[in-house]
Amino acid sequence: MITDKERPLTIDRESIEAIAQEISEAYREGLRKIVLIHGGGSYGHYVVRNLISSRGEIDEDGFSEVTWWMGELNRELVMRLRGRGLPAVSISTHSIFYERSDGSLGYHLEPIVMMIERELIPVLYGDAIVSGKTRYSILSGDTIAWRLSLELGCKRVLFATNVDGVFDRDPSKPGARLLKELRISSDIVSLDDSSSKYDVTGGMRKKILEGLEPLRRGVRALIFNGRKKGNIYRALKGYEDVGTVVIY
Amino acid sequence: MITDKERPLTIDRESIEAIAQEISEAYREGLRKIVLIHGGGSYGHYVVRNLISSRGEIDEDGFSEVTWWMGELNRELVMRLRGRGLPAVSISTHSIFYERSDGSLGYHLEPIVMMIERELIPVLYGDAIVSGKTRYSILSGDTIAWRLSLELGCKRVLFATNVDGVFDRDPSKPGARLLKELRISSDIVSLDDSSSKYDVTGGMRKKILEGLEPLRRGVRALIFNGRKKGNIYRALKGYEDVGTVVIY
Repeated sequence: MITDKERPLTIDRESIEAIAQEISEAYREGLRKIVLIHGGGSYGHYVVRNLISSRGEIDEDGFSEVTWWMGELNRELVMRLRGRGLPAVSISTHSIFYERSDGSLGYHLEPIVMMIERELIPVLYGDAIVSGKTRYSILSGDTIAWRLSLELGCKRVLFATNVDGVFDRDPSKPGARLLKELRISSDIVSLDDSSSKYDVTGGMRKKILEGLEPLRRGVRALIFNGRKKGNIYRALKGYEDVGTVVIY
Repeated sequence: MITDKERPLTIDRESIEAIAQEISEAYREGLRKIVLIHGGGSYGHYVVRNLISSRGEIDEDGFSEVTWWMGELNRELVMRLRGRGLPAVSISTHSIFYERSDGSLGYHLEPIVMMIERELIPVLYGDAIVSGKTRYSILSGDTIAWRLSLELGCKRVLFATNVDGVFDRDPSKPGARLLKELRISSDIVSLDDSSSKYDVTGGMRKKILEGLEPLRRGVRALIFNGRKKGNIYRALKGYEDVGTVVIY
């Protein structure tokens, strides 16, 4: 969404400005408790892929490099939000998240909770984190979103993607229908199954299954196309007609 | 040290490169457990002064602004350290530090501890933080340094400043002598007293008194002129002939 996926280390200026504008409108109209989380796009994914292919792993220099570039991307977004008068605050994910020796995720959210109370907009991102288990690992924006939804008691998690939502079959096939609602308590088996009746492939299946616990507890998720003008604004305002609602 | 104090929002490129170079030499020669902390210079201090004079306080926009500019300065330093091949990692202070309602300082250092174990160089900075008591407050680099020295069990805290150390009288007066050692268990009364026999004025007195607890527990502090070529390298290598050693 915020990067040009075709070109390494390049932001999508137009898209990022549109996002900032729509968030700004919703904020001004009263939606004040927001946490923004972005992914790696052609920054993080590109750098990590290069590191893995050249060195086989993320080493110390690699960790410094990934966190540096993700910080660059984050600041591009925060700068544009600030340019619209929004009190955005960059939060370096690797400063608060870490992986314990048993593989569990450690984090402390007090400053973020206090920022939200003050109607600031913390902006986190998928990032490399230190790990007691594997030395370094990658924490995805999706994982952060689901975790925060549980920890902060969020009502809604909005996933702005570059597809319209979840389809009943491969969306490139004729007759493919966008699902208005996906109830994972009944559809979870097909989600888990690669011969699913729905086209919940790769990243999308993972995205949803990772949220089982928050969804079970009542969090509503909305997966929608963030590149279509107005969708982010509508999603923020509570309209659910812009994509697929995922509930338990 | 790393900013041009005469000009707002301007780094001192030459000084910052010299610092990066000297840290790089010491790191390469085996000094691998380092945490760097920098102050606000003509970034943070300038922005905060402007906010206070125009709005009387740090409000939400002000918090976003201070954290933004300090992030800029931090990235200038981290970029130059990385340019020397050092695995520096930017740590946004406002993401981990906060002030509780009772005024005490809250923070969680697990990721930083794990970074130091891996011989990464976390780079923190004086910053605005959220406060349960006053909404926002300023956390100085000095305070961070002393706290980390206690929490991480550091042996030494090095203060690179723009003066040579602590003098026995106003250093602009003839005959003023640089103290090689300041033993605060015996000199603490005069430190607290503005009619001190030593010239430990303003920031310097505060800098030292804030470290009473870590000093009492055996931390050695060195206050020296970081602008003099070679001093940072020598201080990192353990030489104490570059300024004033402060002990309990």
